[in-house]
Amino acid sequence: MQTIRVETPSAKYDVVIGSGLLETLAQRIERAVGRLPRRVFVLTSPEIWALWGHSVLRSFSEAPLVLFLPAGEQHKTMKNVERLTREMIRAGGDRGSFLIALGGGIVGDVGGFVAAIFMRGIPFVQVPTTFLAQVDSSVGGKVGVNLPEGKNLVGNFLQPRAVFGDIDALGTLPDRELRAGLMESVKAGIIRDRALVRFMEEHADAILQREPKALERVIAASVRMKADVVRRDERESGLRMILNFGHTVGHALEQATRYKAMLHGEAVGWGMVAALAVARRRGTITGAQMERMETLIYRYGPLPRLKASAARVMAATGSDKKNVGGVRRFVLPFGIGEAGVVEDVTPDEMEAAVKYMLARARVEGQ
Amino acid sequence: MQTIRVETPSAKYDVVIGSGLLETLAQRIERAVGRLPRRVFVLTSPEIWALWGHSVLRSFSEAPLVLFLPAGEQHKTMKNVERLTREMIRAGGDRGSFLIALGGGIVGDVGGFVAAIFMRGIPFVQVPTTFLAQVDSSVGGKVGVNLPEGKNLVGNFLQPRAVFGDIDALGTLPDRELRAGLMESVKAGIIRDRALVRFMEEHADAILQREPKALERVIAASVRMKADVVRRDERESGLRMILNFGHTVGHALEQATRYKAMLHGEAVGWGMVAALAVARRRGTITGAQMERMETLIYRYGPLPRLKASAARVMAATGSDKKNVGGVRRFVLPFGIGEAGVVEDVTPDEMEAAVKYMLARARVEGQ
Repeated sequence: MQTIRVETPSAKYDVVIGSGLLETLAQRIERAVGRLPRRVFVLTSPEIWALWGHSVLRSFSEAPLVLFLPAGEQHKTMKNVERLTREMIRAGGDRGSFLIALGGGIVGDVGGFVAAIFMRGIPFVQVPTTFLAQVDSSVGGKVGVNLPEGKNLVGNFLQPRAVFGDIDALGTLPDRELRAGLMESVKAGIIRDRALVRFMEEHADAILQREPKALERVIAASVRMKADVVRRDERESGLRMILNFGHTVGHALEQATRYKAMLHGEAVGWGMVAALAVARRRGTITGAQMERMETLIYRYGPLPRLKASAARVMAATGSDKKNVGGVRRFVLPFGIGEAGVVEDVTPDEMEAAVKYMLARARVEGQ
Repeated sequence: MQTIRVETPSAKYDVVIGSGLLETLAQRIERAVGRLPRRVFVLTSPEIWALWGHSVLRSFSEAPLVLFLPAGEQHKTMKNVERLTREMIRAGGDRGSFLIALGGGIVGDVGGFVAAIFMRGIPFVQVPTTFLAQVDSSVGGKVGVNLPEGKNLVGNFLQPRAVFGDIDALGTLPDRELRAGLMESVKAGIIRDRALVRFMEEHADAILQREPKALERVIAASVRMKADVVRRDERESGLRMILNFGHTVGHALEQATRYKAMLHGEAVGWGMVAALAVARRRGTITGAQMERMETLIYRYGPLPRLKASAARVMAATGSDKKNVGGVRRFVLPFGIGEAGVVEDVTPDEMEAAVKYMLARARVEGQ
C-alpha cells in the first residue's frame, strides 16, 4: 500500500493505493475525515455496484443511500446532475451530508460536481475503480460534466477529502480499458518522470498481466507526478497545463467521433503521437527520442484505427477549451521526462502533425 | 457615492453604491478589475435591457454579447443554466471570458452560478438593479438555482470581482418591490445595526419617496452590515447564520405559495414577525422592543395577506435547508441590533409563532 499526500492551496488530502480497501472503506474514510454523518450517499454505476456493492456495504454500520449513474460518457450531463441532486433532497440530504463517488472517471467527475454544488457544497471522497480514474481523474479537483457542444465545459474545482484506489477493483477491468488507462501513465512519464518511462519499458509484461506490485508502482508514480503538478498550480494557470500533453488533438478525436469510437486514453495515445510529431519538427526531441516514446505508446496499445479525416480533426481542435483568448496553447515534450507549453503552433504545423498521426494510425491502429 | 470594501478569505472587492454608474459601467469595471477580455457576456432580463441597455452599451467600445433570462423565480433553474452555458460556448466563450450580471437577484444568482461553473469558473461582476439585489443578493457570494424541491438547493460560493449598485435604476422599480427590498434593510438593522433602525424609523417618508441621499444611506448601511458578517464567516458556518433572520418561516411561506403569491422580501417580513414572536415568548426581547420592531416592519409594508394554513407553513419549514443534520436552527433577536442562533426551538414554539404571524396577517395584511 502506498499513500501519496496531495497539497493544494485549498486542501490537503491523501491518495491511498493498495489492495483490500473496498472491504474496509467506511473505517478508512472515518480515519481520514472523521466521523461520517447520518446521510451518506454513494454514487456509483450499476455494474460497479453489482461487483463491489456487497463488499462496500459490509464496512458500514448504517447502510448508505445508493445513487446510480449509468456507465458511459453520454450520461455525464447537467440533466443527470439535476436528477441526482433532486434524489438527494428527496432522500433527506442536507448541508451535513457526505458523498462517496465509487466508480470510474465519469462517476468521479459527476459525483464531484454534485458534491460541489449540492447545497453549495458538501464533502466527498473519490473511490476510483478503473485504472484511468486511479491515476488521473480522481486527483486534481477537476469535476464537471459535458455539454452537447463539448467535453467538460461546465464544472468546478473541488478537492476530495481523500482518495482510495483499490488495486483489486482492476482485476475485473476489461483489457482495453486497462491499456487505455495506461496511456495516462505513459503521459506522466514523458512529461515529468523519466524513471517511470524506463520502468514501463522494462516491465510491460508484468504491468499488462496486472501483477499487483507492478500496477501499484505505476499508479503511485503517476499519482505522485500529478499531485506534484497540482500542488504547484491548482487552478491550471501555468504548470498544470503540461498535464494536457496529448489532449488537444486527443479531445479533437473524441469530439470528431462523438466520444463513442474510442476511449479517452486511446484518444490521448493518438494525441501524444501528434504532439510528438510537432515536437520532432521543432527539434525539441531527437529522432531517437521520438521513436522510443512512440514505441512505448504502441507497447501499451493497440490503439484503435482512426476514421476521421484530417480536416474534421482540425476543425474539432478549434473549439478546444484549452485555448485562451484565441491563442492556441500546445504542450510539447522537451526530451524525455520534461515538457512545456508553447503558444505559437501554427495551423500548418497542426495539420502536418494530424496527418502524421493518421498515417501512423493506418499502420499501428487495430 | 459610497464604496464598501468586502473582504473574505477567498476574495476582496468593492461594492460601489451611487448614481450614474450604468452609463460609465465599462470604464468602472476596467478600473476595478483590469482590462476586459474580448468576450464579455452580459446576462440580463429583457425588461432591464429595454430600460438600461442603451446606457450600458454606450460605455463599451466593443459591444458585449447579451444573454437573456426571463424575469421570475420560475426561471431560476438548472435548465436555464445549461441553456446559457451552451449559448456562451456557441458564441465563442472560453476560459478567458468575463460575465456581467445586470439585473435583480435572480439574474445575479443565476449569472453568478453560470460564471462559477462555465469552464470551471470565469470572473464576473454584479450590477444589481433592484433594491433587494443591491442590499442583499449581490454581496456574499451565494450563487445558484432552485430545484422543484426547494429554493437555492444547488449552487456555489463565488465572490464577484466588483459590485456596482446604481441608485438611478431604482427609479423605475415598482413600489411593491422597493418596499419588499427594504425588509432586508429592516432585517439588517434588527440583527446588527441599531442606528439603521433609528434612521429607518425617522426617515421613512424620504426613503419611500426614493430621495437619493436617503436611499444611498440605507443601502450602504445594509451592505456594510452584510459585508462585515460575510468577512467574518464566508462559508456560513457560524455568524453568517444570523443573516437568515426571518428566513426559516419566510422560505416556508414562499414554498407553501410556490414562490408566486409574494415577493421574497415580503415573505421575510412575515418571517421576521414570526421570529419576533418566538423571541418574545423566550424573553430575548421585551414587549416594547417587539412592538417597535413590528411597527417598523409594517411601516415599510403593506405586507400581503397570507392564505396558507398553519399546518401547511409548518410542513414547509421541515424541508428548510438551514437545518443541519435535523437540528432546527433558528435566528432570534436579542434586543434591537443584535441576534444569535438557537438550536432548540420546538415544534410547539414554531407553531405558536406561525399562528401569531397568521393572526397579525389578518389585521395588517393587504
